[in-house]
Parts: sequence; C-alpha cells; structure tokens
Amino acid sequence: MPHTSTSPTLQDGDLLAAIDIGSNSFHMVIARYTLGQLRVVDRLRETVRMADGLDGKGGLSSEARQRALECLARFGQRIRDVPSHRVRALATNTVRQLRSPQAFLMPAETALGHAIEVVSGREEARLIYLGVAHAQPPKADQRRLVIDIGGGSTEFIIGSGMQTLERESLQAGCIASTRRFFPGGKLSRKRWKDALAEIGREFQPFASKYRALGWDEALGSSGTHKAISEICAAMKLSKGAITAEALPQLRDELLKAKKIDDIVLPGLGSDRRPIIAGGVLVLEAAFQALGLQKLLVSKAAMREGILYDIVGRAGENDPRDVSVDTLTVRYDIDVAQADRVQSTALSLFDQVRESWKLEADDARMLSWAARLHEMGLMIAHSGYHTHGSYLLENSDIAGFSRQEQQMLAALVRTHRRNVPKSAFEALPERLVVPARRLAALLRLAVLVNRAHESTPLPVLEITAEDDRLSLIVPQSFIDPRPLLRADLIGEVDGMTGLGLQFKPFVA
Amino acid sequence: MPHTSTSPTLQDGDLLAAIDIGSNSFHMVIARYTLGQLRVVDRLRETVRMADGLDGKGGLSSEARQRALECLARFGQRIRDVPSHRVRALATNTVRQLRSPQAFLMPAETALGHAIEVVSGREEARLIYLGVAHAQPPKADQRRLVIDIGGGSTEFIIGSGMQTLERESLQAGCIASTRRFFPGGKLSRKRWKDALAEIGREFQPFASKYRALGWDEALGSSGTHKAISEICAAMKLSKGAITAEALPQLRDELLKAKKIDDIVLPGLGSDRRPIIAGGVLVLEAAFQALGLQKLLVSKAAMREGILYDIVGRAGENDPRDVSVDTLTVRYDIDVAQADRVQSTALSLFDQVRESWKLEADDARMLSWAARLHEMGLMIAHSGYHTHGSYLLENSDIAGFSRQEQQMLAALVRTHRRNVPKSAFEALPERLVVPARRLAALLRLAVLVNRAHESTPLPVLEITAEDDRLSLIVPQSFIDPRPLLRADLIGEVDGMTGLGLQFKPFVA
Repeated sequence: MPHTSTSPTLQDGDLLAAIDIGSNSFHMVIARYTLGQLRVVDRLRETVRMADGLDGKGGLSSEARQRALECLARFGQRIRDVPSHRVRALATNTVRQLRSPQAFLMPAETALGHAIEVVSGREEARLIYLGVAHAQPPKADQRRLVIDIGGGSTEFIIGSGMQTLERESLQAGCIASTRRFFPGGKLSRKRWKDALAEIGREFQPFASKYRALGWDEALGSSGTHKAISEICAAMKLSKGAITAEALPQLRDELLKAKKIDDIVLPGLGSDRRPIIAGGVLVLEAAFQALGLQKLLVSKAAMREGILYDIVGRAGENDPRDVSVDTLTVRYDIDVAQADRVQSTALSLFDQVRESWKLEADDARMLSWAARLHEMGLMIAHSGYHTHGSYLLENSDIAGFSRQEQQMLAALVRTHRRNVPKSAFEALPERLVVPARRLAALLRLAVLVNRAHESTPLPVLEITAEDDRLSLIVPQSFIDPRPLLRADLIGEVDGMTGLGLQFKPFVA
Repeated sequence: MPHTSTSPTLQDGDLLAAIDIGSNSFHMVIARYTLGQLRVVDRLRETVRMADGLDGKGGLSSEARQRALECLARFGQRIRDVPSHRVRALATNTVRQLRSPQAFLMPAETALGHAIEVVSGREEARLIYLGVAHAQPPKADQRRLVIDIGGGSTEFIIGSGMQTLERESLQAGCIASTRRFFPGGKLSRKRWKDALAEIGREFQPFASKYRALGWDEALGSSGTHKAISEICAAMKLSKGAITAEALPQLRDELLKAKKIDDIVLPGLGSDRRPIIAGGVLVLEAAFQALGLQKLLVSKAAMREGILYDIVGRAGENDPRDVSVDTLTVRYDIDVAQADRVQSTALSLFDQVRESWKLEADDARMLSWAARLHEMGLMIAHSGYHTHGSYLLENSDIAGFSRQEQQMLAALVRTHRRNVPKSAFEALPERLVVPARRLAALLRLAVLVNRAHESTPLPVLEITAEDDRLSLIVPQSFIDPRPLLRADLIGEVDGMTGLGLQFKPFVA
C-alpha cells in the first residue's frame, strides 16, 4: 500500500522506549534495535499505585496524580533524546476510568516529554501476549493462555504462535479488588467467599468459550504472579509454578490475618502486602472459572509487547494495516472507490505536508480514514458518515490506541456534510489542528471522486498556508462536470466548520 | 422457527386494509383475501398535501394537521370493523421530517382507530416495488427500474422478479421541490437550470451504480407520473409513456408560464397544477442522471405493496424473518446461543401472555430480539447491548417499520445491566408497557442461559400480574449454580428500571 513508504523505518543502533502507565506500577523499558532484534538496555519500574487515587466517580486524588507526574518526569529525563516515533507510552485501566482523561494526560505528556496514548483492555491484552510470545516463543501448534493481573483490570488471552485467538479484559485487578472486597483492610473467610462468587460471575460470559478452546500451557505475566509464585516457593508448595493445590493453601495462610496490614506470608515483600489479597483472590477465581491446574510465570509483559509493536509499526507488519484490511472485508467496503479516495488524499497530502507540518503518522491516519470512510454504509445510507464514526469510536480494533481510533472517527465523521463542533472534542489538544487539516484533505478527496469514475483524475494542485487552503482544478476536468463545480463552491462554506478558508480555482 | 406458529393466519374472505399517509395524498386500499389472492374491493384517495404544512424546522401547520386528521377519521370509519392485525397504516417523508412525530401520530391513530407506523425511505422503496411487481409481474430474468415521485421524497428501485436489488430514497419530492426551488411560485429558465444541477448532485452517490446495474424496463408509479404521461398524451408527444424526447418539450411548455398559478398544460388537472413543476423537475433530473429513454406508468404503488406485505407477514414469508436471518449472518451471531435464549424467552412468554395481555406481534418482537441480542458483539464486547441497540435503531432493515426497529433496539439495549430512563422514550406510548414486559422476559432468558450450557434448561415457572413478576427455579438447577442465584437476586434491583417488582423463588 502506498502509505507504507511514508513510515520512518528503524536503523541499526536506534533506541526504542516503551512506557507502561499501569494502575499499580509504571514501567519503562529501553531497547536497542540491531539487525532486526531488540536488546534491552535499561529497565525502570516504580510503584506509583495510581489506582489508589481513584474516587469511584472518575476523579483522581492529587496525591496519586502527583506521584504519577513525578515518576513520568523521571522517566522523561532518561529518554529525552529518543525521537518521538520511537517512544510509545500507553496508559491503561486507571486512566480509562477517569472522567476527564485529558486533564491528567496533558500534564503527564509535558512531564514525560512524549505523547501518551490510552489503550482499551483488549488492546492491552494483545500487547501483553505479544510481549510474552517474544520473550518465550510458544511451541509450534500449541495454544497458550496468558493471564495478566494488573492493578485495575485483568487480561486473559489465548493465542497460538504470535497471534492471539481470544482476548478478554476483566474489570478486576489486584488494587481494585482489594479496595472493593476488603474495605477498611478487613479480611474474613465470608468476605473471601462472597468475593470469589462475585468475580466468578464476571467470568461467565467467556469461561466456557475459553475452556472449549483450551490451551497447552498457561502463563502469568504480572508482578502479582511473580509475587505469588515466590510465596509458593518460599512455602515449599511448588517450584516456581502456581498450582491448583498450592493456591488454596497460600490463601488459607493469608486468611490467618484478620487485617491486610497483618498479612504474613513467606517471601512477600512489604510493598506488595497492601495489594496481595486482591491478587490472590482474582487468581483463585481464575483458577476456578477456567479449571486451571498450573500456571507458569513469564517475566515479560505489556512493556515488551509495546517494544515489538513499535518495530511492527515501523516495518511491513503494522498491525493496524491488518486491522484496516479486516474492517474493509467485514464492512464490505467498495475497495476500488477506497483506493481512488486514498490515492487522491495522499497526493494532496504530499503537496501540503511541509507547509502544514504534517508527519508520517498523519499520512497513515489519512490513508486509513480514506480506506474506511464508507464503512457506515453497511448500517445505512442515510448518515453513513455518522455510523462509520460510531463504529470507529466503539469497535475493538487491534493495534490502535483510543486516540488513534478517535482521530479516525473524527475524520470519517467530517468527511461530508456539516462539521459539528463536537467532532474533534474527544481528541487531545495536540491532535486537533492536524485532524482538521487531514479532514479537509479527505473531504476534497471524497468530493472529487464522488462520481466513482474509474479513469484517473488529473493533477489537482493544492496549496496551504496556516488556515488557508486553495485548490486548482483544470478547466478541462471541471467543464463537463457542473456538479463538481457546485460541490467545490459548496466546500467554501463546508470548510468553515474546520476553521479553514477554502478557495477553489479553475485553471 | 417457533414463533411463526404464533402469528395469526389469514382466512378466506378476510378483509385487509392498507393506508399510505403520504406527503401529497393519503390513499387507502381495501382488499379481500381469497384462495391466497387479493381482490381490491375499495379505494380511497384524498389530496391532503400535508407537506405543504411543514415549516422547515420540524413543525407542522395546524391547517395541514387538521386536514390530515379529518381524512384519517373518514378512512377510519370505513375500516372500523377490520381487526388491527389486518390493517397497516404507514406514514412516510413528511412524518419523518417532524420534530416530534408522536405529537402528530397519537391523535392520528385516534382518528384512524388503528396504529400508524413510520417507514424509512428505503422501506418505502421496498413496498413500492412490491406493489408494482404484483400488479405487473416482471418478465423472468429481466431487471426493472421503478421510480416513485412522492410529495416529499422520491424512491428509485432496481429489482428482479419480486426482489429488490437496489433501493434509494432521495430527499426531493414534487411538493418539497416546488417549494424549495420556486419560492413565491416564480418560474424561470435560470431557476430551472440551477434546480436541475442541485438535484443532479443528489444523484451522484448512486447514479453510476444504477447505470452499471442497468434495467430492461422502467416504470413510474406515482400520481406525478400519471399526470405527466397524461400531459404527454394530450400534447401528442407520446402514447402513455414518458420519453426523453417528450419531457423537455413538456418542460418548455410549462416554462411559458412565469408563475406556477399560470401554468397551462393540456390534460393537467387543477389540483395537480400547484405541484407539477417540482414533479417535472425531479423527473427531468432523473432522466438526465440515469440516462433514461422511456418510462412506462404503473397504476400500483406503495399501498398495494403494503397489502402484499400484510399477506407475507401472516404467512411463511414474513420479510422480517429474512432480514433477521441476514443480520444473524452479517453480524456473525452465535446461533446456538440465540436459539437457546429465544426458546427460553418464548416459553416464559407463553406463561404470562394472558395475564400480561401480550399479543402475537409481541411474541415475534421477543423472538427477534432474542435472536439479535448479541449482535453488538461484532463491534465490541464492552457495552455490546448499547452497540446492538445502535445498530437496530440505525440500520436499514427491510420489512420493519421505524417503531418496530425502535422496539427491538429498546429490548436489546435493556437485556442486561442497568435500564436507562431513555431506553423506551422513542416508542409510541401504546408500546411502552408491552416493551417493558418483553424486556423483562428477555433479561431472564439471557440470564438463565448465561453459562452457554448446551443441555436444555429445566422448566422455569413464571407468573405475572400487573407490575409483579415471579420466577420459580428448581432447587436441583440452582444448587450447583451459585452464580445464577446471585444473578437472579441482582435482577430484583435490575427490574426496578423496568417498573417491575421481580421475585425469584427456589422450589
């Protein structure tokens, strides 16, 4: 596809950085790219416990916020010289819970010195699997279950090779469950039993599907698993693995304490004590619901997955291309028309790229939006741009962050008809100007291809400067097309909604 | 499928009535069903010109409203004794334009004495094609284009046999276009040319698709076509058909008048004069955009299509069943689970049908909602009931009226989690109580099948009285299923959102 040439490729020796802004801890891994391989050169981890600051109504305590910003500032210092396209910082469940994520993300991006994206639970699951699969490649033809108990959510993935088959995200992490089921830090067998039943209900929608699919080995990839396996080993219940026999014994030992502060377990570090109860609880529920016998521990997690995703995005294997192709098939999109619009859009893009300071990422967004702009037609002709936008905003699309989906949704929403004021509201401030500019290019590309003509378009010259955009259409092209002329004149009004002064010329 | 047995079948001698509440005129056709055939026994037509009362902001003038209600009252007298399941009254573009359709529909239903449904432009197109195809069956393997110029919108259908292949609805009818392009009733060549270009633009999205598909014959099915063909005949331009040669001559003759009131055309009735300009305009734009050479006139239209649709709904060929099956495939729905939920839902329905005064139509709605309740999973796991509801509300689904789609959307929206106050707001008042009751049955059917178990459920006894609902679950079923118990207890709260007092019992 044309746009792959617009992505910056990696060079030997390049440093890449992945930051996981988790609900319990923040991680950063820095790796050097050499001969197609990654070698980790630095790892940072801080227990920020951001989920502790959630107030249940989408607010974040100023203490938790402060801890997060300070950690990000420290991380930022370390990667000051790494260019932005080789850094990916992803936020997960706690930021997903925020009422106004932007109010946190803006200062967080300033502290880090790089953009921060939010990913859905299922995208998080994909990245976790990717990280674990690269660290410990699965045997051919084997299925693997990976469980990652985070601070706020827990991800369950079944995969084979490097591909995921099923991905689920459960609203139950070690911090969240500790706070929810043991308020005031009080422990009891009754509370534990009720909590197990409650979490067990959440497994119902997918437990039987997972058991039917099955797996050859199961791995846990989070700090919680590491801690629990260390306790199992210290209690001499197992050698590194977590087993169906060991877990209830560990839990009984844990429940000898009546309060979380009093928990004493061999091998348990003091910084893990406040959240171990929730972690053991979620894991016991998982063992029951999925009929698990044995869980091995992986050292890799989402952070490594992010690194490999950066490599994929920079090469021929951008997972987002695959997802866009999948959507094209699923929504039965007219590929010939999508190709025409994409090609026109990119030729316009190339002409204004410099003056509008657009980047390689913007070219990709424009390409994908061009390929998907008609996807809402599957729902209905009437208002199909709105339907397409709804689908892009709400679908689980592998490889995309939330902001990227919102960007695509905004472009598809505004590719025809009026531009509502709300169209770009969900985007981070830094993306609003590029989004409006890409929207203008997409509108023009759709407009000049509106007749679905299969003959190639003539060269359309476009120039842009700040908020002004001019298009020159050859006389010979427009003369036999009075409708095109009317449409172009209509755009003078249409583009005011994008904050642009548009002028069409005939030459 | 189980629910077909719940539909009332037609008996020889039954009277059926179809009412078309159009933007220009209201039509009623009454037919007798005999030996699988329909024989028209009465036709009524009144020029209500309801679209004249639109104020462009979704309001309707009190005069137009009054004319509509009086006409419906007269129609209602004629069909006072026809049972409701054999009457279908459908409203089209003008009611679609209303800001609060219910404010018109409630008194309109009272006047008519029957429910009135609103249909989308594309459903209208399907019914028009059905009516024309029954009146003049197309030759085998031939493609037919049908054009219906209404008061507010114009429908374009390509079909083969009894099936439509393409359906489009254009926001341009004879009243709407006359008002839009000739305000103050002033005519001129300049205005005409600009209007042609403007309407021509609206054809762009589908004209090339239609031309590529092609047709063997073209038919016009509205009063506008009849009037124009009569003028052509009176001007000796053609014998009944409307041709590409005749139309510009007719238009030139029309444009000799400078004002609509002064239009003189041979064969033009005075009641058609105020709206003939818009009709000729839309037709000329259609001839140009589609490259039409010749258009024959059909006497049948949507009203006949509605009659045949009543017959289809009463038998084995309910077009809605086909649509639901299509959606099941398109959205890759787990059919085994859909079957289980449907079967449970209908067994609960049978037990409360009498005390809750539910009807055959309600059983069908419940069945379809059960079959489609998981359709939103294609978009995302998270909030899939909301996504399914969006799809049902916004999709073009052949055979369903808007209210029926809104009912399905409400049932899918409320089949799990909380019930928002807005869930039933879009429904006509008369459907709110049945909808809430069906929603309760669907919730329970989904809940008891939540584990996706393939073994059949035991008998669940349910009783209902007004706003109270009790379910008895066998001890042997619930004992090994603590999650089910918790879910049922949760429904005590869950159903308050439906205005119901729910009590689960174990026996």
